Amino acid sequence: MDKILRIDMGAKGSPTAQEAPLGEYAGFGGRAMTSAIVSKEVPPLCHPLGAENKLVIAPGLLSGTVAAMSGRVSVGCKSPLTGGIKEANAGGQAAQVIARLGYAAMVLEGKPKDDILYKILINKDGVKIIPDNTLKMMTNYDLVEKMKSEYGDKITCISIGPAGEMKMSAASVACTDMELRPTRHAGRGGVGAVMGSKGVKVIVLDDSGMKMRSPKEPEKFREANKRFVEGLRKHPVTGQGLPAYGTNVLTNILNEVGGYPTYNFKQGRFDSAGKISGETQAELEVKRGGLATHGCHRGCVIQCSGVYHDKDGHYLTKQPEYETVWAHGGNCGICDLDAIARLDFLDDNFGLDTIEMGATIGVAMEAGLAKFGDAEAAINLVKEVGKGSYLGRILGNGTAFTAKAFGVERAPVVKGQAMPAYDPRAVQGVGVTYATSPMGADHTAGYAVAQNVLKVGGDVNALKPEGQVELSRNLQIATAAIDSTGMCLFIAFAILDQPDTFQALLDLLNAFYGLSLTADGVTELGKKVLTLERDFNARAGFTAQQDRLPRFFSTEKLEPHNVTFQVKDEDLDKVFNW
Amino acid sequence: MDKILRIDMGAKGSPTAQEAPLGEYAGFGGRAMTSAIVSKEVPPLCHPLGAENKLVIAPGLLSGTVAAMSGRVSVGCKSPLTGGIKEANAGGQAAQVIARLGYAAMVLEGKPKDDILYKILINKDGVKIIPDNTLKMMTNYDLVEKMKSEYGDKITCISIGPAGEMKMSAASVACTDMELRPTRHAGRGGVGAVMGSKGVKVIVLDDSGMKMRSPKEPEKFREANKRFVEGLRKHPVTGQGLPAYGTNVLTNILNEVGGYPTYNFKQGRFDSAGKISGETQAELEVKRGGLATHGCHRGCVIQCSGVYHDKDGHYLTKQPEYETVWAHGGNCGICDLDAIARLDFLDDNFGLDTIEMGATIGVAMEAGLAKFGDAEAAINLVKEVGKGSYLGRILGNGTAFTAKAFGVERAPVVKGQAMPAYDPRAVQGVGVTYATSPMGADHTAGYAVAQNVLKVGGDVNALKPEGQVELSRNLQIATAAIDSTGMCLFIAFAILDQPDTFQALLDLLNAFYGLSLTADGVTELGKKVLTLERDFNARAGFTAQQDRLPRFFSTEKLEPHNVTFQVKDEDLDKVFNW
Repeated sequence: MDKILRIDMGAKGSPTAQEAPLGEYAGFGGRAMTSAIVSKEVPPLCHPLGAENKLVIAPGLLSGTVAAMSGRVSVGCKSPLTGGIKEANAGGQAAQVIARLGYAAMVLEGKPKDDILYKILINKDGVKIIPDNTLKMMTNYDLVEKMKSEYGDKITCISIGPAGEMKMSAASVACTDMELRPTRHAGRGGVGAVMGSKGVKVIVLDDSGMKMRSPKEPEKFREANKRFVEGLRKHPVTGQGLPAYGTNVLTNILNEVGGYPTYNFKQGRFDSAGKISGETQAELEVKRGGLATHGCHRGCVIQCSGVYHDKDGHYLTKQPEYETVWAHGGNCGICDLDAIARLDFLDDNFGLDTIEMGATIGVAMEAGLAKFGDAEAAINLVKEVGKGSYLGRILGNGTAFTAKAFGVERAPVVKGQAMPAYDPRAVQGVGVTYATSPMGADHTAGYAVAQNVLKVGGDVNALKPEGQVELSRNLQIATAAIDSTGMCLFIAFAILDQPDTFQALLDLLNAFYGLSLTADGVTELGKKVLTLERDFNARAGFTAQQDRLPRFFSTEKLEPHNVTFQVKDEDLDKVFNW
Repeated sequence: MDKILRIDMGAKGSPTAQEAPLGEYAGFGGRAMTSAIVSKEVPPLCHPLGAENKLVIAPGLLSGTVAAMSGRVSVGCKSPLTGGIKEANAGGQAAQVIARLGYAAMVLEGKPKDDILYKILINKDGVKIIPDNTLKMMTNYDLVEKMKSEYGDKITCISIGPAGEMKMSAASVACTDMELRPTRHAGRGGVGAVMGSKGVKVIVLDDSGMKMRSPKEPEKFREANKRFVEGLRKHPVTGQGLPAYGTNVLTNILNEVGGYPTYNFKQGRFDSAGKISGETQAELEVKRGGLATHGCHRGCVIQCSGVYHDKDGHYLTKQPEYETVWAHGGNCGICDLDAIARLDFLDDNFGLDTIEMGATIGVAMEAGLAKFGDAEAAINLVKEVGKGSYLGRILGNGTAFTAKAFGVERAPVVKGQAMPAYDPRAVQGVGVTYATSPMGADHTAGYAVAQNVLKVGGDVNALKPEGQVELSRNLQIATAAIDSTGMCLFIAFAILDQPDTFQALLDLLNAFYGLSLTADGVTELGKKVLTLERDFNARAGFTAQQDRLPRFFSTEKLEPHNVTFQVKDEDLDKVFNW
């Protein structure tokens, strides 16, 4: 991981690949790496689909090692959805394999002048960039099958579906999981459209013959990893809740606290939430011969995922996440797990962000295109996106775009990006994160749900404005740092609650790189990343006015608590005061 | 004109109308009035289609008097197209009639909760707000015919077509002309969508029984008006060019200088420009029994408009303006005047901005939806908008929206609004206006074409950056002032070149209001208006980064001069330094 692979898709003649030393980017991984490169090299006012934008794919600092949970890959660029900087990350195998192939980052640059689609093969022998128009408009599952038939089953794929090729702002970048299925998506912000604009359909990675990355201090590293894993196993969220029911354990919890956005953020509770809860989902998965407990990449010890079978016992999709079940479920008044699983599969197959698509369909329902609760109508809407029909072109460009197309005022977006599964009026801490994150509305950027609702790592009243700014600030800083390590964000539950587990993470980094990083150093890294990102956005024309929720969260009261978003503008402007 | 009519469409029970004194808005007219009210009363971060936005309709300071050319009406709001403040103005009869009815402004506020469409009748007896769902999705021509059958032919209508009802960002507000035809549009920025969001289909005005507004010093006023008219008649542009060929006299001129954007701003000259020039158009109009010289409102002495008949000698549309002929013509590679006239009619009938629609079709052609030059395809695309099909929903939301829907990088817009008929690379002064006007890309906001190309009121090399910032600054200030008087902007040619004519305008204002306004006072008014507008935009989140042209104008050279836009960013930032 001591070099950067730069692929110039706009090179004269045909695309070229070049390896470069890390240079000024040494010591960066994951989100720190993608944001540093984008911030420095991409003109903030460039067109997101133009030659000047870059797509940066970076494993984390600990990816490719034996450290548990180190399988997140970051994908960064100027976002076609928000117009600002973007880092979306994904699980699956990609991070580990890229890291073992020696790359701290792969950068897709330029733009092909012709209408040719490319596949890029990377293995121990080097890089091949091959034109292959037979792949045009292929769905992710078909594409991966084709790659498997051509290159064997030891590969890992990073790919786009038809949505990315059509440069839709809801398009994701898919990464394959341990079963070589395209189920792990860097979903948010339209990163798939940027990959599509570069003319790259798929990057096929094969790390056969490459070694696991070795730490500077192997003994210390092994010992720290052991403590780290023990910490994760003993914490109730990472050791019990997530393995048993997956992220969808949250449906009942959020519904109970009245923070479950229902009918396009009209109310905070969904009558039928129990039908689509994690508990119901896990029971159904096991009954049908799927899996309720499964990892998305090798080295995962939390195992929050699963495998969802249809009623005939055939694979339908991976276990849909809480945010997906919410987006396609309660947010649209849908309480049919099979329909939600089909929607999850369609999104993965077309290469679409499930959160953006669910929120989009909620708005389309408000516009009268379908009735709330009509699962078949929702499925047909997503199919329109895959077809690229005119309606699909609208929906595939996301929630804000769809709202504008149909003159709908209530678009639950910040910086153009759809809000996830937590109503900011009933979970005010996450509202602060939605409003102020450089990424647009993003729960993962500062998951105040932990302290507001789950009471992990602190206890801040979810319905009051007090303490939310400080909470979101600290979480955003910590998250930016964790997103740079390649660690799954779910380790946060354990490291926030258990000082020993946090120390184990520090020891992992220190033993691997021969550093003496402290908690303060982690904070500094997080601040550095956020500062880079905020600076890019400022140069792209963002001001404090973009760090706001849509007005209706301040004017419409949310049942059952009859509460509006109470954090004042001037307090939102203090999130990044440090 | 000593009161403001406020119509609250969201009032409990049913909409209400209230008259209020001018208060702090005394002394304002036209754009100064709309921008002052919007800036003070509309929350900059509100949704443009929400209850908090207001639609302000204001005649100019001299409207409703016998002063020549005083028939412009300003329509202001927060724009759904740009997200910033908007003033779009129109000719026709509305300004005179509103002024004679005594209103310095009519303000549509709030938002009806039901799905009812209203017509508003205003005459000497007062205001009636009448629900009338039979008007739903009626086109402007049909609507006006219906109003005529109900209320007689002494009326003036301000209305929206289906585009406004569908809240499309390219929707205009139509005003009827002397023949009671809906041909005069406040076109830009989606003001029609805001009227639609208020549930108002048409405002029917009748000034029967109302008197012409009388000046404080009648004799001085009459004498000043005489000098003013003489000045307009003796200037070659307002006395000869515009009356003979209308605004479309510019086609040959702009084409000759290589500043005529062709094929979606791909080149600066159109081979077939001669076929759609003002000269050709005037000849055809006369031959078919139409009119090549005609006014759009009573009191017009320039008579730049006309009447366009079809080949059978029947009325088809008013004489399409230069910008319309360009937008639907050369910009789309179309050189058929009849097709362009049909497009003009369709735009007027559906209630659409011709500039936005032409630029949108240019982008749609670049996206491959139709071939450049295919006039029938262009007509069908506009018909889709009128139908409100999914494709129509895309196109009706304008150029930037359409570009995003189809992943097209080359969107010729600033602040989301399409550029008009002058390529900023070959007419760099107007490029500065496009970039920096608070309105988005708008030639009328600071028409540097005059000095860059026509050599009226100065001579600044069109292809060089030198002097353009100062030029645009002065023109933007002067324009903001003229837009506040209710005067047609075309008087600028004469008042910029002829000090006597400028003095006559000052004398008109002074004699009417009993003031002693000087040239400096006019400049101060212009600066005040721009400052209000810039302040609103800043509070809506606009920064210097929004005062930029799209990148491709800096990277793609324009033939035949092989020139890019050369004005530096730091110089653009000096436009409003005073």
